[in-house]
Amino acid sequence: MLIDVNLISPLSRSSPITDSSPYEVRRAQELNNLLGPKGSTDAIDLICDLHNTTANMGLTLIHYTTSDWVTLARTSQTKITKVPVRVLVLDFPISDAYNFESVSRHGFSIEVGPQPHGVVRADIYIIMKEAVDLTIDWIHKFNSGTVFEGGDVEAFKFIKSVDYPRDPETRTLTSAIHPQLQDRDFCLLMRGDPLFFTFSRETVKPLYDCEHTHTQTHTHTHTHKNTHSNAIKHKYPCTQCNTHTLIHAYTFI
Amino acid sequence: MLIDVNLISPLSRSSPITDSSPYEVRRAQELNNLLGPKGSTDAIDLICDLHNTTANMGLTLIHYTTSDWVTLARTSQTKITKVPVRVLVLDFPISDAYNFESVSRHGFSIEVGPQPHGVVRADIYIIMKEAVDLTIDWIHKFNSGTVFEGGDVEAFKFIKSVDYPRDPETRTLTSAIHPQLQDRDFCLLMRGDPLFFTFSRETVKPLYDCEHTHTQTHTHTHTHKNTHSNAIKHKYPCTQCNTHTLIHAYTFI
Repeated sequence: MLIDVNLISPLSRSSPITDSSPYEVRRAQELNNLLGPKGSTDAIDLICDLHNTTANMGLTLIHYTTSDWVTLARTSQTKITKVPVRVLVLDFPISDAYNFESVSRHGFSIEVGPQPHGVVRADIYIIMKEAVDLTIDWIHKFNSGTVFEGGDVEAFKFIKSVDYPRDPETRTLTSAIHPQLQDRDFCLLMRGDPLFFTFSRETVKPLYDCEHTHTQTHTHTHTHKNTHSNAIKHKYPCTQCNTHTLIHAYTFI
Repeated sequence: MLIDVNLISPLSRSSPITDSSPYEVRRAQELNNLLGPKGSTDAIDLICDLHNTTANMGLTLIHYTTSDWVTLARTSQTKITKVPVRVLVLDFPISDAYNFESVSRHGFSIEVGPQPHGVVRADIYIIMKEAVDLTIDWIHKFNSGTVFEGGDVEAFKFIKSVDYPRDPETRTLTSAIHPQLQDRDFCLLMRGDPLFFTFSRETVKPLYDCEHTHTQTHTHTHTHKNTHSNAIKHKYPCTQCNTHTLIHAYTFI
């Protein structure tokens, strides 16, 4: 990851650079000048930002409210079989995003895990390399006029984040993800499934209807699973919540 | 981990504290004053230092050239069944060690993994809790005069560390652990087994006889497997090396 998640914000792009400016702000402006400016017609067509995570996410393509990458996702799901390939749609236009890839006009990111911070695992490296090679190959085909076959892609959508249980005074965490849930990213959580395991050895279950979650690390992010065709169709408000059958979640670091 | 590995050295214990002294040196002296002084008859009987690691070590009891903890290890191996319980003997007296537990007269450490840095996994927490509970129970029994049954314990011994392949000029890593070896800590490596996977997608195999290794992260540490009775018997030089059958290795971060 070249740059932190919030640093391509309007503030970081326009702050005057001084000797005391943090490296990240300086670097954000450099990259925005080099590859953007963000939101302009001069911006580069595509930045694909590569991430890894401690969460058991497999290979996840993350993009914005756009159908740009649906056929790439379908290609990746067909050709990469060692790990699950998923699609996560962040339900806002790329112009509102702060991630590095949002500097470009059609940016998206590839997230692969699990891999601890500071560790390089060959299996994760190989999967990311395959995804990058497929992306470059897809772009070459796209640029040469290839018409890709249409079809559906299962996609997850961000709903909201849920924090860990914390001590009300110190705000320190009082629990970890329940062992039955750990590493089961993107699996369906049913009402009453164990959610957290407190350090006093109690199990915490969800007490609400539509707020199941699953994550490995610091915060929870809820997603809905929808089926996206080449033209993404949003269905809000999502009546599926009432059935408790299509709530999915993931971790995004 | 309360304190870094090299900070209970003679230097850190005797350095004059100034306003610019690093926190770790200051804390090392505080702990040495509180629980030591190291090597003195005033030192506390036991410090058990708890560590976790990204390596797939299961539960590993690490101690020095002493038979103090053989019966505890046997008890742990009997009662903890969710993960492998191993014993690693650092082949030098505790007085020469720099780890935090070396401040005490009979210190040892418990290492549990895999767990990424900055992440708390409930399964790892539960295993560590079981090991600590067993240790405390064992100490109560020991202090009340219990005579423990004798027997053998399989133990691993540190031999030497082997670094990753690096670029000869920049010294940056040029490979990761081979996927066939990743996560197989403490498994036997045979001559010719794949060892590293270079970022140019080549496999590196060991070219030497007696220097097999297995690790997950930064450096490799070779160990020999011996069987220890209550009185540990060292057998050097180890003729087992010539058979290539009893060389084991582990990762220690």
